[in-house]
Amino acid sequence: MSVEQKAVVIYDTTLRDGTQGEDFSLSVEDKVRIALKLDEFGIHYIEGGWPDSNPKDKQFFQEIKNYELRNAKIAAFGSTHHPAQSPEKGLRALVEAGTPVITIFGKSWTVHVKEALRISLERNLEIIQNSVAYLRQHVDEVIYDAEHYFDGFKEDRDYALQTLKRAHEAGATTLVLCDTNGGTLPHELAEIIQETRKHFPSATFGIHAHNDSELAVANSLEAVRNGITHVQGTINGIGERCGNANLCSIIPNLCLKMNIPCIPAENLRKLRHVSRYILELANMPPNKYQPFVGRSAFAHKGGVHISAVRRNPRTYEHIDPELVGNKRRFLISDLSGKAAVKMKAEEFGIKLPEDDPVARSILLRIKELEAAGFQFEAAEASLELLIKRLEGESRKYFELLGFRVIDQKEEDGRPPVSEATIQIRVGGQVEHTAALGQGPVNALDNALRKALEKFYPQLKTMELIDYKVRVLPGREGTASKVRVLIESSDGKDTWGTVGVSHDILEASWQALVDSITYKMYKDEKEKSSS
Amino acid sequence: MSVEQKAVVIYDTTLRDGTQGEDFSLSVEDKVRIALKLDEFGIHYIEGGWPDSNPKDKQFFQEIKNYELRNAKIAAFGSTHHPAQSPEKGLRALVEAGTPVITIFGKSWTVHVKEALRISLERNLEIIQNSVAYLRQHVDEVIYDAEHYFDGFKEDRDYALQTLKRAHEAGATTLVLCDTNGGTLPHELAEIIQETRKHFPSATFGIHAHNDSELAVANSLEAVRNGITHVQGTINGIGERCGNANLCSIIPNLCLKMNIPCIPAENLRKLRHVSRYILELANMPPNKYQPFVGRSAFAHKGGVHISAVRRNPRTYEHIDPELVGNKRRFLISDLSGKAAVKMKAEEFGIKLPEDDPVARSILLRIKELEAAGFQFEAAEASLELLIKRLEGESRKYFELLGFRVIDQKEEDGRPPVSEATIQIRVGGQVEHTAALGQGPVNALDNALRKALEKFYPQLKTMELIDYKVRVLPGREGTASKVRVLIESSDGKDTWGTVGVSHDILEASWQALVDSITYKMYKDEKEKSSS
Repeated sequence: MSVEQKAVVIYDTTLRDGTQGEDFSLSVEDKVRIALKLDEFGIHYIEGGWPDSNPKDKQFFQEIKNYELRNAKIAAFGSTHHPAQSPEKGLRALVEAGTPVITIFGKSWTVHVKEALRISLERNLEIIQNSVAYLRQHVDEVIYDAEHYFDGFKEDRDYALQTLKRAHEAGATTLVLCDTNGGTLPHELAEIIQETRKHFPSATFGIHAHNDSELAVANSLEAVRNGITHVQGTINGIGERCGNANLCSIIPNLCLKMNIPCIPAENLRKLRHVSRYILELANMPPNKYQPFVGRSAFAHKGGVHISAVRRNPRTYEHIDPELVGNKRRFLISDLSGKAAVKMKAEEFGIKLPEDDPVARSILLRIKELEAAGFQFEAAEASLELLIKRLEGESRKYFELLGFRVIDQKEEDGRPPVSEATIQIRVGGQVEHTAALGQGPVNALDNALRKALEKFYPQLKTMELIDYKVRVLPGREGTASKVRVLIESSDGKDTWGTVGVSHDILEASWQALVDSITYKMYKDEKEKSSS
Repeated sequence: MSVEQKAVVIYDTTLRDGTQGEDFSLSVEDKVRIALKLDEFGIHYIEGGWPDSNPKDKQFFQEIKNYELRNAKIAAFGSTHHPAQSPEKGLRALVEAGTPVITIFGKSWTVHVKEALRISLERNLEIIQNSVAYLRQHVDEVIYDAEHYFDGFKEDRDYALQTLKRAHEAGATTLVLCDTNGGTLPHELAEIIQETRKHFPSATFGIHAHNDSELAVANSLEAVRNGITHVQGTINGIGERCGNANLCSIIPNLCLKMNIPCIPAENLRKLRHVSRYILELANMPPNKYQPFVGRSAFAHKGGVHISAVRRNPRTYEHIDPELVGNKRRFLISDLSGKAAVKMKAEEFGIKLPEDDPVARSILLRIKELEAAGFQFEAAEASLELLIKRLEGESRKYFELLGFRVIDQKEEDGRPPVSEATIQIRVGGQVEHTAALGQGPVNALDNALRKALEKFYPQLKTMELIDYKVRVLPGREGTASKVRVLIESSDGKDTWGTVGVSHDILEASWQALVDSITYKMYKDEKEKSSS
């Protein structure tokens, strides 16, 4: 097997193929912001959309002209011209997008020519040739995406090669081999690429892989090992069905493991930021297990792992997390020990000497709480407050005198009415108030905020962004313990808190109180340090 | 490259390495249920846990002995014996687990021997040899996991080979090469496996891959192509950091694409069900983009794709979704009514006579309920009742006149008091009663049973064996909708029901009412058929 390692250019299609993903859609403004972010990151090509079929995409190509890009070229995307139209008419919208690069796809697979296009095999070859030749009159770079190339090659290899030949002769500057259905295995892909490249010794080749077999990253790397120098994919692997090849994994594998020039090393540190930025704009939840950039990607749970990583991170980390802008984390869990608690306290800026009795009592308390069902992995604000409390340094901002929640259902078909009353003391003052809500937990939340905002107006800036309930294992049915996890934000920071009880309202109450207390503690800490 | 294609055995470590995953934890009952499901699916080995370090795992090995497995052998997992202990003492708990197979891991990488174990290289070899030899006195199969084998081989190849030699000579029946840190690329892995196998022509080899580089599936397949016949992984790829090799992708790739005997074809159709079952038990949300089993894996969005797939599914599907128990979906909202219903019908596996109005109204209702957050995957009793109801064949065993739940907390440190009152009508009789509970849901459950048992004494044989709550996606915080799943049993049968509401009490009420109604409906059905 010949292995060549030239520089690789990255072609991002998040704005085009990515938007075929279920639940992924972007406004024109989002698209512009993402394009600028990708340019800053060092991506070489950004495919913006289909100017022909989508008015939103057409607008994107207008808007993006107002910006000067530093690294990337913008590409407009479309298909070869319609069999019933001339190239001039069929491809006009693509040319009018005014981009320096145009990418078109054509059919490589006889099944598609016959059953989808319903034209003769020869007519398809003409269309490919005429489309590429026409576009080359208008732009210097025409990228030809050979749709279903690998399936086509397996079905009728000579025909698949002929489609490439026509595109190449007509002036296509890159021939992109697409595994459109995502079904090709890496060893098949390697053989087909080797065979194909023999016929086009001077051509530049690209790869476009889909993840239907969970092999898109492997296929892209295997393509590069076989001399391909142009890699298409999307940020976070978003795309139709199971998604496209994930650039957030391909780029660090190329740069850090295969030593192939691709994105500058200093930019690679922005990888996690780029990943998150796009998820935020699309309002999609991050996948915490995502390789390289996920929150769990360098999270260590087992006690043995934790102490080994503290001695030498190589023992359980394949790369230094900072190289991709990620962080090492130690998960406080029933599998971890004193070392983990010390590390955690250090993360909060609390130094615990090795034999400090406070450290030991914190560990015991955490173990006790974990045995009772608490879990601090996603509730570090609760953990920080707990450590402060056990160090004797916490402040109580308010005191509960009592609450009562009533949930009443009158008849089938109408939702119940939920009402909470609450009595708290702040300093010397007692506040007694009531609120309704959508369900009893919400009523309690509303009443608590109503009571406290009078004293602490800064709570108005804070909102609950996530609320999770988990029934703890056991066979107690409706009497089971529940764990409530709350995530809160004040626009600047985000923090997690936890509560556990047989009573879901009490568990929610605990997590709510920690969340509010943390907000006030955090504000004080910031004030005193500024 | 030599390519051999023998049958492959699958070794599942969901119950052990899987539980190292962040947010993934299982009760002993869950573990038993998962083991039975994996056995039924046709998995060859099930690694149950660490009997040495975890009391929960120890209990699992006791419980699972009460069942006769059809396909799988259970394996207990641990490490080579502690340097300061004898094999007899250090490995006793493993032997006492009483499993037919024991798996132990040992150190292959000099860095780990020196920095984590802090013993001499020679002592590590002795420990490996003595541990395997001791275990072989007690069980016929000892699987040796060579931790960090690929990193170890790169650092000091002779030493890595020596560790395997000692395990092999001491009688290890399978030598498993582990990519513990998940950093190895497929071509490196292939070279190391080829080189290693030359030294052990008669040994059986296994692969254990992690997904830190998004290459665990590719690495596992590449290992099989290089003569490895034992593949370790977890269902859904759950596991520490970015997870283990995903059996839900490896198995169909082996069976359907590489034609390697592994899981019987008829069982492969349960793949999606197995994937979902484990997520449901662990209360983890499914990843809709997951290859093969995800909800989007065969979902077609673009209009061109949809019409092509309707003509010939091969055009945009790498396999027939039914082979893995999945369904084709068309993501189009404005499709004509009849066609949409027919496609939806196929999704639910219901064969619809073209013009049956009842069947159509059932499907529309299911669609409506799903859009509102209901999910019938784990709640087939609710689905059956729903269909009966829409067919006009249901019986109402009781009618709700109203309920009121009060949850009152007096002061910090004491649990709240939960009381429910309920008014129902059975036939002509009204029952008004009250009960306390551990939390408001339990109070409601108690009051409902108290009211009904008077009329339906058979309800006394029925118990709730599981109660799960999931907050549905959205940013409504404590006002979010929740889905309640209940599993009930009367010692003979087990059934699941579901409820959805903004109010957790109302959602619980719906699921409770379905659960009780189903019990009575089921008893009647049995009586009339006997």
